[in-house]
Amino acid sequence: MATAPSVSYSITVRLEVPAGGTAVSQLTSAVESSGGHVTGLDVTASGHEKLRIDVTIAATSTDHAQQIVEKLRGIEGVQVGKVSDRTFLMHLGGKIEMQSKHPIRNRDDLSMIYTPGVARVCLQIAENPEDARRLTIKRNSVAVVTDGSAVLGLGNIGPKAALPVMEGKAALFKRFAGIDAWPLCLDTQDTDEIVAIVKAIAPGFAGINLEDISAPRCFEIEARLREALDIPVFHDDQHGTAIVVLAALTNALRVVGKGIGEVRVVMSGAGAAGTAILKLLLDAGVKHAVVADIHGVVHAGRADLVDADESSALRWIAENTNPDGVTGTLKDAVRGADVFIGVSAPDLLGGEDVAAMAEGAIVFALANPDPEVDPSEARRTAAVVATGRSDFPNQINNVLVFPGVFRGLLDAHSRTVNSDMMLAAARAIADVVADDELNANYIIPSVFNDRVAPAVAGAVREAAKAAGVTEQPTIPD
Amino acid sequence: MATAPSVSYSITVRLEVPAGGTAVSQLTSAVESSGGHVTGLDVTASGHEKLRIDVTIAATSTDHAQQIVEKLRGIEGVQVGKVSDRTFLMHLGGKIEMQSKHPIRNRDDLSMIYTPGVARVCLQIAENPEDARRLTIKRNSVAVVTDGSAVLGLGNIGPKAALPVMEGKAALFKRFAGIDAWPLCLDTQDTDEIVAIVKAIAPGFAGINLEDISAPRCFEIEARLREALDIPVFHDDQHGTAIVVLAALTNALRVVGKGIGEVRVVMSGAGAAGTAILKLLLDAGVKHAVVADIHGVVHAGRADLVDADESSALRWIAENTNPDGVTGTLKDAVRGADVFIGVSAPDLLGGEDVAAMAEGAIVFALANPDPEVDPSEARRTAAVVATGRSDFPNQINNVLVFPGVFRGLLDAHSRTVNSDMMLAAARAIADVVADDELNANYIIPSVFNDRVAPAVAGAVREAAKAAGVTEQPTIPD
Repeated sequence: MATAPSVSYSITVRLEVPAGGTAVSQLTSAVESSGGHVTGLDVTASGHEKLRIDVTIAATSTDHAQQIVEKLRGIEGVQVGKVSDRTFLMHLGGKIEMQSKHPIRNRDDLSMIYTPGVARVCLQIAENPEDARRLTIKRNSVAVVTDGSAVLGLGNIGPKAALPVMEGKAALFKRFAGIDAWPLCLDTQDTDEIVAIVKAIAPGFAGINLEDISAPRCFEIEARLREALDIPVFHDDQHGTAIVVLAALTNALRVVGKGIGEVRVVMSGAGAAGTAILKLLLDAGVKHAVVADIHGVVHAGRADLVDADESSALRWIAENTNPDGVTGTLKDAVRGADVFIGVSAPDLLGGEDVAAMAEGAIVFALANPDPEVDPSEARRTAAVVATGRSDFPNQINNVLVFPGVFRGLLDAHSRTVNSDMMLAAARAIADVVADDELNANYIIPSVFNDRVAPAVAGAVREAAKAAGVTEQPTIPD
Repeated sequence: MATAPSVSYSITVRLEVPAGGTAVSQLTSAVESSGGHVTGLDVTASGHEKLRIDVTIAATSTDHAQQIVEKLRGIEGVQVGKVSDRTFLMHLGGKIEMQSKHPIRNRDDLSMIYTPGVARVCLQIAENPEDARRLTIKRNSVAVVTDGSAVLGLGNIGPKAALPVMEGKAALFKRFAGIDAWPLCLDTQDTDEIVAIVKAIAPGFAGINLEDISAPRCFEIEARLREALDIPVFHDDQHGTAIVVLAALTNALRVVGKGIGEVRVVMSGAGAAGTAILKLLLDAGVKHAVVADIHGVVHAGRADLVDADESSALRWIAENTNPDGVTGTLKDAVRGADVFIGVSAPDLLGGEDVAAMAEGAIVFALANPDPEVDPSEARRTAAVVATGRSDFPNQINNVLVFPGVFRGLLDAHSRTVNSDMMLAAARAIADVVADDELNANYIIPSVFNDRVAPAVAGAVREAAKAAGVTEQPTIPD
């Protein structure tokens, strides 16, 4: 698959060119003929002899950007100056900051925000700890916690290198749900230590968003923290993905007119996301699910599973899926299936595999950046195709989920997050797409659809209240 | 000592009063005759028969505020409605928030701030971890870490109740030094756990401000973290206090014309602040220091010290002070002393004790809110008196210190903080007071003097560079 030029590989090149002649038009042609797009051209200084021009160019990759610069360097009379990378420029000094809500202008302000006035607020909370939800940032704060072990598709790059992702996540929490999130990138990948740390930092937060922690540690860490803490713990890579997949599947099934209890679902990938998707699909009513990993279809008789630890995620999958005892490869399993959901690796299936699925096939090929099957190929025979990419229709994106889910949990003062709340969130996202909007190329709303987060928040808030897991401060509004 | 009405005990009372007659003037008289101050009076609704009035009143305490409300209730025709506490109102929902530095308007913004563009930034840092200081919030972020064990004068009130103080601290970091601080209130008071937690969260921060952790654990926690981490660790209750005391002492000695190497200094208090003040004074050249705690003067022969752990702070004090072998009580020790510094408990000394000090005596009575000696009493014979209170001259306040110290450390990319940097910070604060401004009632600048933080930051930055403990990212500006 060719990738289109993207602003995420955008550079700004400072050039000096002769004032007369055709140098400027040559610039644009050179960029376009190299496969780049000129997205901006500013003359920043002009004289009789020379122009100074800042050209902003979208490329397809870092290498491609470099090639374009070399091409510009080859134009007669053009001098190439500083080359800036727009994405890097946006990251200088970080993407988020802390702000005081109140001005501190004089001693009166100081005496209320800090000592001596603050002491009375401290004592109120010491007597009634629930009031921390009223009188502190706890009420609206979420810790975004990672150990840097499974960051995006980059793998185990460690806590410092993970920080730009966590900052971005925090920025999205604010943009879409008004939540104050702060990143905590942990310099340990020890399960016990991570559990102890998150337990210890919990008093100042109303929710914990675990992020980019590798499987299988993420399962144990989340389970132990949910048990220990009185605030919700949500591993976005698992549950955020599961919720948005269920929302998309709900609407894809509306498009093809099948019921969730009837379809045969084949999944590729048994990691954090795959396992969570599977569990939520089962909770939502899926009866026929088969999961394949790198060793083929998961079933109880598989050599590597006979001796597996009883608590292992694969054992759980073997015991809770595949009622018909399917064996063999992923390709074997998808034959005749209604739904394929991939959260695994690129290019596992060809167009012929999709063609061998049932009539009205649904294909979610979510491996990023390269899907399990070429979406254009898949679309020739499948009724609905979705990917994780922003340059195809039906992008399956967690950004639709986590801001609204946490908004709802925080507004309800929820002490936990459960499957009912996740099902409610998925339903809310699906319902944002009205019957007259729904079609094979629009099963899921855009991340910039401003009805999504409030709908999700409302659904989760009501589900939390219905579950009776909310906490109220003693001081009324 | 009578306390003056303060805005930190300020309430706003909603009243309904008859439109005619003298009820309004009666209100004001009632407040003033109760010892309160009316600081605001707004008519928020007016009719032929009734006025609705919001009166804002400064009281001296919570009880006093309640008495004033009762007095208002007693006025003929007046109905008392909602009573709001201004300090509590400022704390609703917390005092700080997280902000995104960039707008996220469309998919282009998203693709640079978050995926896929962010991946390139992550990879750059994975290859060159020093670049986290350029490309992330690390560069300007400080963790404000407490376990809630020694909060203000309130004692061990725990992590949730400590949060308002930590939020206030974060707000002051921003106000005075543009630093992004985030509070971490830990639900553990175990030394090993706290050390492990702070080590683990360090990758996302350029400095650690320990706060309100009780002695003696604070000494070990700080020492172990300094050893383990490549970012500065600063316990403000110790070193912030020590720096501002040294600054004030430097200028008090200028006022009385004595040299720091000659004076006899007597200290009351051997806790976190006392120990740190002592060490910094010794580093600054004090030669004759005597410390008293609740059991009297500390000396090596004291019963409770003979068997004390060699690593104990008291043993250290005994071995490094009191060269003349003074014994007995605090009152014995201050006789003839040049300087008294108290960081201990209220009302330990009387005016007669201060009168028995040497000519040109300097008294810093810093116990809060009630000093070791009544400052008005002390001022009768002492040449210079300072307290921690904002209603006397010469307020010794850490707010003068920590913003500038961390600004300097962060700007230098310092990996640690040492005694030279602290001495430089104290000198910078002292030097803000020019010779022609200096007098017995003005030895230390106001916390709102905007020359302080930049002066401290500059001094600390240069001291860090001179110490050769700074780290530079690979990407140039």
